[in-house]
Order: sequence, then C-alpha cells, then structure tokens
Amino acid sequence: MSATEPRAARPPAAASTGDYGDSFPASRKTYVEGPGGIRVPMREIVLSGGEPPLRVYDTSGPLGTDVRRGVPAVRAEWIAARGDVQSAERTYRPVPGKSTAEIPESLRRPVLRGTGCVTQMHYARRGEVTPEMEFVALREGLQAEFVRDEVARGRAIIPANINHPELEPMAIGRRFAVKVNANIGNSAVTSSIEEEVEKLRWATLWGADTVMDLSTGKNIHETREWILRNSPVPIGTVPIYQALEKVDGVPEDLTWEVYRDTLIEQAEQGVDYFTVHAGVLLRYVPMTAKRMTGIVSRGGSIIAKWCLAHHKESFLYTRFREICEIMRAYDVSFSLGDGLRPGSIYDANDEAQFAELRTQGELTRIAWEFDVQTMNEGPGHVPMHLIKENMDKQLEWCQEAPFYTLGPLTTDIAPGYDHITSAIGAAQIGWYGTAMLCYVTPKEHLGLPNRDDVKTGVITYKIAAHAADLAKGHPRAQEWDDAISKARFEFRWHDQFNLALDPVTALSYHDETLPAEGAKIAHFCSMCGPKFCSMKITQDVRDYAAKLEAAEAGMAEKSAEFRQKGGEVYLPVVDGAVDALPVEAEETVAAD
Amino acid sequence: MSATEPRAARPPAAASTGDYGDSFPASRKTYVEGPGGIRVPMREIVLSGGEPPLRVYDTSGPLGTDVRRGVPAVRAEWIAARGDVQSAERTYRPVPGKSTAEIPESLRRPVLRGTGCVTQMHYARRGEVTPEMEFVALREGLQAEFVRDEVARGRAIIPANINHPELEPMAIGRRFAVKVNANIGNSAVTSSIEEEVEKLRWATLWGADTVMDLSTGKNIHETREWILRNSPVPIGTVPIYQALEKVDGVPEDLTWEVYRDTLIEQAEQGVDYFTVHAGVLLRYVPMTAKRMTGIVSRGGSIIAKWCLAHHKESFLYTRFREICEIMRAYDVSFSLGDGLRPGSIYDANDEAQFAELRTQGELTRIAWEFDVQTMNEGPGHVPMHLIKENMDKQLEWCQEAPFYTLGPLTTDIAPGYDHITSAIGAAQIGWYGTAMLCYVTPKEHLGLPNRDDVKTGVITYKIAAHAADLAKGHPRAQEWDDAISKARFEFRWHDQFNLALDPVTALSYHDETLPAEGAKIAHFCSMCGPKFCSMKITQDVRDYAAKLEAAEAGMAEKSAEFRQKGGEVYLPVVDGAVDALPVEAEETVAAD
Repeated sequence: MSATEPRAARPPAAASTGDYGDSFPASRKTYVEGPGGIRVPMREIVLSGGEPPLRVYDTSGPLGTDVRRGVPAVRAEWIAARGDVQSAERTYRPVPGKSTAEIPESLRRPVLRGTGCVTQMHYARRGEVTPEMEFVALREGLQAEFVRDEVARGRAIIPANINHPELEPMAIGRRFAVKVNANIGNSAVTSSIEEEVEKLRWATLWGADTVMDLSTGKNIHETREWILRNSPVPIGTVPIYQALEKVDGVPEDLTWEVYRDTLIEQAEQGVDYFTVHAGVLLRYVPMTAKRMTGIVSRGGSIIAKWCLAHHKESFLYTRFREICEIMRAYDVSFSLGDGLRPGSIYDANDEAQFAELRTQGELTRIAWEFDVQTMNEGPGHVPMHLIKENMDKQLEWCQEAPFYTLGPLTTDIAPGYDHITSAIGAAQIGWYGTAMLCYVTPKEHLGLPNRDDVKTGVITYKIAAHAADLAKGHPRAQEWDDAISKARFEFRWHDQFNLALDPVTALSYHDETLPAEGAKIAHFCSMCGPKFCSMKITQDVRDYAAKLEAAEAGMAEKSAEFRQKGGEVYLPVVDGAVDALPVEAEETVAAD
Repeated sequence: MSATEPRAARPPAAASTGDYGDSFPASRKTYVEGPGGIRVPMREIVLSGGEPPLRVYDTSGPLGTDVRRGVPAVRAEWIAARGDVQSAERTYRPVPGKSTAEIPESLRRPVLRGTGCVTQMHYARRGEVTPEMEFVALREGLQAEFVRDEVARGRAIIPANINHPELEPMAIGRRFAVKVNANIGNSAVTSSIEEEVEKLRWATLWGADTVMDLSTGKNIHETREWILRNSPVPIGTVPIYQALEKVDGVPEDLTWEVYRDTLIEQAEQGVDYFTVHAGVLLRYVPMTAKRMTGIVSRGGSIIAKWCLAHHKESFLYTRFREICEIMRAYDVSFSLGDGLRPGSIYDANDEAQFAELRTQGELTRIAWEFDVQTMNEGPGHVPMHLIKENMDKQLEWCQEAPFYTLGPLTTDIAPGYDHITSAIGAAQIGWYGTAMLCYVTPKEHLGLPNRDDVKTGVITYKIAAHAADLAKGHPRAQEWDDAISKARFEFRWHDQFNLALDPVTALSYHDETLPAEGAKIAHFCSMCGPKFCSMKITQDVRDYAAKLEAAEAGMAEKSAEFRQKGGEVYLPVVDGAVDALPVEAEETVAAD
C-alpha cells in the first residue's frame, strides 16, 4: 500500500464542486523545475499496486487563489528581463452606462508596451530561446530548440501578451499536443461577471488550453479584466464584438478608429489572441447568397454587412498592416477568423469558404513580415469525406500556420448532442494536423452553456484531442492509455477511476450498480458478474502461455543439446504444440 | 399554418416517457405501401412554414401493443406462402431452478422449421425477390433487385428467422444505410425481464436497428421469449453464454451437445443472428499472452479457456458445418465473433486479432456454401490511424461480407464517456464501409446501462451512423440535414427541434435560456442576442445579392444588345461590381 492510498480511496463529494481535490481525488499538483526558476505544473495521479504515479498535462492553474487578487504573475520577471518594454498609460476610459461593474484595486495592473517588436516569433527568429519556450518544452517533453524553431517557422505559436504575466505558456502547433479552446462570455440576454470567471476556472480545471471570452453584453471590459487576471491560460477575443457595442450595434457605423482603439484597449488588458475576420472580402459576400445557411459567423456577418453598406473592403483588410503594428508591440497573436465558414453540411467546402481561406493565407504571410504570431480559424459544419480537403488546403495556402477549427460538426441533425457530432470531426481534423480544437457544448445552436455544459464540452474535446494525439504518435499520449488499461486489466478499480478524464463520474457510474467498497477490489464487475469475467479468464490464459514459454525454454535447451549432438529437426514448442494437435479440426471444416 | 401545427407546438412532457408521441411530439407513424400488402413504417415529421413533411427511417415498431401479447406477426403469411416450412415440436424444457419466470399463454407461438434451406441468401441466389427484400427496398429507397443481388453476393444480410414473424425486415450491408445495434440483457448481478423488454422498446424507439440480448443471469430463455415476441427488429444473441449457464459456468464442461441444443432452442424461439466465436483457434491463444489486456471478449475467453483445457480446437470450429446446417433450417444469420479483439489501444491490430479475422474469412466462405447469411464482428479499442486497416483487411479476407464493429474506441482514458470515445471511431469505420455499429453506452467498462444510458448510446450511434451515411453519399441521408438547416436558417425553431434526433432535449435546452413561447418565433437566440444575430444579417446579404443578380440580368440584357451591335467587351456584373471598386484595398495590404 502506498502512503497515498487513503487519498485515492477517499469517498469523493456527491457531485463535482469545481475544486481540484474533489474533481481529482487521487491527484496532486506538482511542478517540474526548469532553468531560471521555471516551474511547469503537472497533475500527478497517484496509483496503487506499486505503480509509479502518472504525470499529465495540467491547465488548472494555481490553487487556492483569491479571484479578487488574481493568480500570480509568473512571467513578470521574464518580460522585464528582456528590457524591451516600457510602462504606458491605459487608454481605456469607462463609458457611463456601458460599464456598471467595478474592477477592484487588487486586480489593477500597470500597462506595458513594447519599445519595438516583442513577439515570441521575433525572439525565435533571432535564435533566442525564451523562458516561455523553455516552459513549453518542459510541459510537452520536447527540446527547447525544437519549440523555438517551430515558432520561428510560424508552424507554432505561443500566445503570450506581455500584459498577461499570469499566463502559464503553451504552444499551439501541429507538432505539439492538440489543444482545446473553450468559449465563455455573457450575451445581451444572460450571465454575469462572477459566472464568467467561474466558467473560466471550471473550463481550465477540466483541461481547456485556451479560453475565448466572447462577451457581447454589458461590462465587456470589466468582465475581461476579471478573466485575464485570473487566467493561467491564453485568453482570446473577437474585438469586433466590443467595437460593435461601442457603435450601438449598428455594423455600418463601425470605423477603423473605433476598432483600432478597441484593439489597443484589449491589448493593454493582456488579451493573448484576437480573432480578426480580415479575410472576408466584398467580392466573396455574394458567393454566400445561394447557401443553405448563409453567413453563420457573427464576426463574418458584421463585416459582410459593413462591406455591403459601404461598398468597399473592410478596414480589417485595408488596415491589416496597421493592425500588425499594434499586435507586435504587445505580442498579441492573430487568429485569422473564418467569417464565411459553412453553417450546414450543404454549404461545406464551397467557393466562399475556400476563397476566404486563400486570403487567410495571404494575410498570414503579411503578419509574418511583422513577426506577428498567427493561426487560422476553420470550419464549422463539414461531412467526414470533405474534412481532409480543409486541412490540406490550409496547410498549403497558409504555409503550415497552425489551424484552429470549430469541430467540424459532421451532421446537422442532432442539436442537443453537437458536442458529439463535432467531436467526431474534431478528432479527425486533429489527426490530420489541426493544432487547436474549439469546443462545442451540448447547447450549441440552442442556448448558452451552463457549468455542466462547459464541463461536458471540455471533456468531449479532450477526448477528441487525445485521440488525435494517439493517432499522430505524440510521444506522451499513449502512456496514459497504457496506464489505465493496465489498471483495468489488473482490477485496480480505484486506479481506473482516478486515471479517467473524469474520475468522479467514472466512480459514480460504477457505484450505481455495485456500490459496496468490496466490489472495487473484486475481480469482476456488474457487466458480466463473477462467473463470466473475461479478464479473469485471461489471467488463466496468461498462466498457460507462461507455462508454454517455460516449456519452450526447456525445449530450446534440449534442442540446443540435440543440435550439438548433430540433430537437424527443431520445432519451436508454441507452434509445435499446435502442430502436435490432432489435425481433425481443420479437416472437419475443410471437407464437408 | 398547417393543420398539424398545434401538435408541434404542444408542450412536451417534462421528461421523455418512452411513448412515441411524447418523444417525437410533431411526428406521426405512417406506412409506405408496397406489393403484396407490404407496409413499411416511416416516421413523418410535420413541419411549418409550408414545408412538406420529412419522412425518416423508423424502427420503433407498432404502437400501442400489449407486451403480454407481443407485436403483430407481419411476416407470417410470407413465410407460410413459400411452402418450405413445417411445424415442429419445441425442444426446450424449462430447467427447475434455472427458470423461475413464466411465459404467458398469449406469448406462445408454434415453432417452424424449414424443410430445406430457408435463408434469404438461398432465395436471392435462386433469383427470387422475397417480400422481405421488397420491404427493405422500400425502406431504404432502393430497387428490390439491388437488394436481392447484394444478399446473393453476401455483401448484405437480412437477418430474419422464420420463427420471428414479428420482424420488420432490414438489411445490413455497406451499400445500405449504416445500422446500429443496441445491447441489452440481464446479468447475474442485476435486472429483470420487464426491464429488459422495456429497454428493447426504448432502444428501438430511439433508432436501434437490431438488439442483442446478452443475458447471462437467471431466466435467460424466458427473457428472450418476451423480447422476441415484442421485437420489430432482429434479435441477436451469443448462444455460448446460455450454454455456459447450463454447465454451471464452468467453460471446460461445455460440450458440442449442450451448445447444439442451445442453438436449436434459440433458433426455435426466433433469434435472428448468433454470435459464434469460431475463429478463436488454439494456436492463436498464446498470441494474447503479452497483451496489455489479454482477451476481453467474454465469448472469446470462454472458448480460449475451453481450448486450453482440452488442448484442441473448439467445437465451434470443428463442428462449424453442423452449425451451418442448423442455421439454414431457420434462417439464423452468423455474426462471426471477434473473440480476440483488442481491449486497449496498446493491443490494437496485433497478430492475434488479425489471425482470427483471417479465420473469420475462411468461415464466411464455408457459411456461404450453405447459403447461411453471414457478417463479421470487429473491434474494439483502436486508435484512429489503425482503423482503416481493419476495414481493408476485413473486406479482403472476408470477401465483403458485412462488417459489424464495436466502436472502435479511439482512446482508453475516458470511462464514463466511452459512447463518445467510440462514436469517433464508429463514424470513421462506418464511412470506410462498416455496415453495422454496435453501440457503446456511457456505462461501458463501469456498469450496466440504465434507461438513460441506452438512450444516450443509441442517439450517439445514430449520429455516428448518419455521419457515415453522409460521407458515403447514401441517397436519403442529406435531405434530413438540409431540412433542419433550412429550418434553423429560417428561424422555424419548433421545426428545428422536431427535426432533431431528440426533439424534447433540444427544446428543453433552448428553453433553459429563453423559455417564453415568443422566443420560438424570434429571429434571434440566446447565444448572440437580438443585435448580433448573424443569420439575421445574412438575410440582408441575400437581399443584396438578389439585387446584384437583378442588376446582372439587366446587364446581361444590355450586354446581349451590345454584342448584337458588334461590341466585344463584356464583364459579368458580379465580378464587375468588384472590379469597379477602388483597388486601394488590395494595394494597402500588398505594399507596406
């Protein structure tokens, strides 16, 4: 019995409470130490039966922090040490009526701005290995130089705004583990700041690698501030949403100036990546008119409407280089939006979608001129046989910049289950090379996700991402599967639960049928009952094979002896045992 | 407003009650009439907005029947009319102590036995189109001759025991819609007959195409009788389970005679397909000894143990031709079991698994000599990149006999969510050509599925099967997606719910955020709120494009006029509109 056994056997709370210990009863947060005081968090799952603990990737952030103070600024020293940032005055001023929420003094941080380009890509291209890259390397079990080279090449990004020092750095790229994004955010209809911060912590507890704040209602700025100060993961936004709020929701009234100021405001807060729908060009808009579901991207439809109203290209496109200038001064990464993504199976892979993707490629190359880190967003709704074409074209046209897809959903007919319709597509495109998967919850198309939906969405997408990692052969993926399968085979029931993505649910499902603690050391389960357990029978098979092998070893000895004596016939015992059988068996079948 | 609108708007019950009307509030059962009095059930979903109703495949069986009387024997006349069956005396006698349940008089049926071969394959090979084939053809929208040819070729089966006249025939084959099987069955630990019959009706209500009764506890015979008499779908079993009960659970004590009598007993009851693990050969057993999880198939491990104990090939293999003789006299189909399927990612596609698959191919050819319909069972746990190899080898080695897979699960790390880990693999292998998918519920590896788990498992697998049908281009698949996407785009909220695989859940998720009935005619939803609705904006885009098109038509007229006058330059207006834009936009981007 290991010293930690009592923890593993501790009865968990009736329902997950959001607390790390309640959700992962046999796990403990540990840190892997790296150069320069780098401490990379891991979740260590304690096992029984003399098995070593298993360490898995951990996104849950520091434990026991006060949401009114935020999480520790682990990157602050690294950023300062580079000597290329200066303090700046915050440009944002609350708008009376739009901002009814407070940001407590304890959450306020000074604003930084780069004196020049401060992006991870910039450093990587100069040949520097930053602490952020070291952190990522340790986190994924890779060489720091490999991380640097992937970032320099544009094949991976490390979203890491200099105003988000609370970040535990992570990489998005197809030679890394597949990542998962969770969307949160209030809307005009529902939700509050507290709920959104809680959703952030909840999503990262279950494994969200980044979180997008898609708020569109009141207090957008204040909600985002609370989220950033409490977030150990990169935060992404779609700045056009807030810009639209500023012009009272009338797309035609949007201007470059309003948008630019919004970018700066959010960059100063520490947003790590911006979705920018700069690939929606005026001439692409009529391509969507004959679609089943037109333009389903919020950002895409706003830009389309603006383009039509003004009959010219959007400022996102015409001012793209100016946007790059802003982003490189804070290291905000681009997530080039797919405003014309298909919203139904019928519309998949059409002219509008691919026209925009090609433009995303053009914009990616421009962003790279500025050393701005860039990924590309992808669909959407796509039937399985059309998924790979998306990946192939993206790799070619966007020159291997990371792809970041929403699903794709592989059928339209199951609202209420779209986490599943989309996990099917997400796992596939992840295997083909997509670097990050945007989760879909059971509420997709129907309503805003609640706490349970967020958990279900994240876990479903961790499954898709992990299945993709296995298929891609990520060096650390299979050890987790092997650990749980070994526990399963050896009837270490508690280990099996604790190694699950969701230990408490696994345990509670087991206990529905066999609640007694004794059943958890039993060599059977409720599916088959004691007599039928196939795993038990297999143990007998293994004993037999061991005997066979021992016999074989004995025979080999004898055989060696035999050969030494000049013999010429040798049959290995395993085959020989079968050869020695009456051949009646096969004959009965072969003849009639 | 259509006459049926009030039904669609009727508030559904708080939870699904298992009743057709409560689960599908805007659906009605309808029948498509065919030759010779054939009536094929369809579920017709009534829509609003002048849309025609959508008819979808229906497995729910006759409504309002009494479980103590069973469902009507729709096939009785067809079977009798062929003139190749005779009454037989039932061989089964209840065993005191093993059978504590009653079969009411109202469920008792006479037993039939073929005077010769009575399989659908036999008729098909003679060039006959049976009513069963007509039924299948109407059900899938195909030609009856096509169905016959596929059955004759062995590429499809119509499991249809002559003692299961209650069956509504269906086909399993890769040129048909992908089918879903649901497992039910009590075990030594839990469950009752009533629960199992209720699970059957519940599973078929949600779309299970076949049901396997995997009971291993008490009253196996009686449970099966209740299930068969109430089943509109084919019922499959694993006869070795009951045979093992008869020898008190000691695999070594199994004999050919006990097994043979069990086959006959079940064939007389009307079981439509038998899982037979005849491919587990003695020489394959030691191949599993170094596996992570050994032999995880119950049937496979029983046979393996028997083979080792007796040190010879199992009677399933040595008596295979005798088994064929029994099955052809009732038209029981083979489901050749994969007793050595991998139980973990680590064990996927190994020597043992593929050795058995090759033997399945050998056995398939023998079964075909007897005109016995045959499909092959497949894995299991397989990472995505190894799935296709399973399908390719099965097609080659088993000569395109239908493949019937369990998942496969694409990772081991998510007990509690294995309906999802496996739906990812199931959708893929369905696309590659698997004809039927065996469902996996959230309780897999943990416990016996309850009612909710059965529903979740079936719906998850309907998603996987439908996604595969879309990817394969099944002629009827996409119309469903198109109907729901059109409803979504046109804000026909009730139609969207009613077209969902699970209408009540979709409605309830929507109502969590926006419960007012008014929101269901609103042109927005809770995700974005009224100002941001991208679909609303798209309507504007469409109006614009229509104007463009009108302008284009006008231009075309002018252009024709122009050309008549000898002009040579013509630009279509859509492109022309863009060409006429100031080119400033692209230049701003292209230059710095």
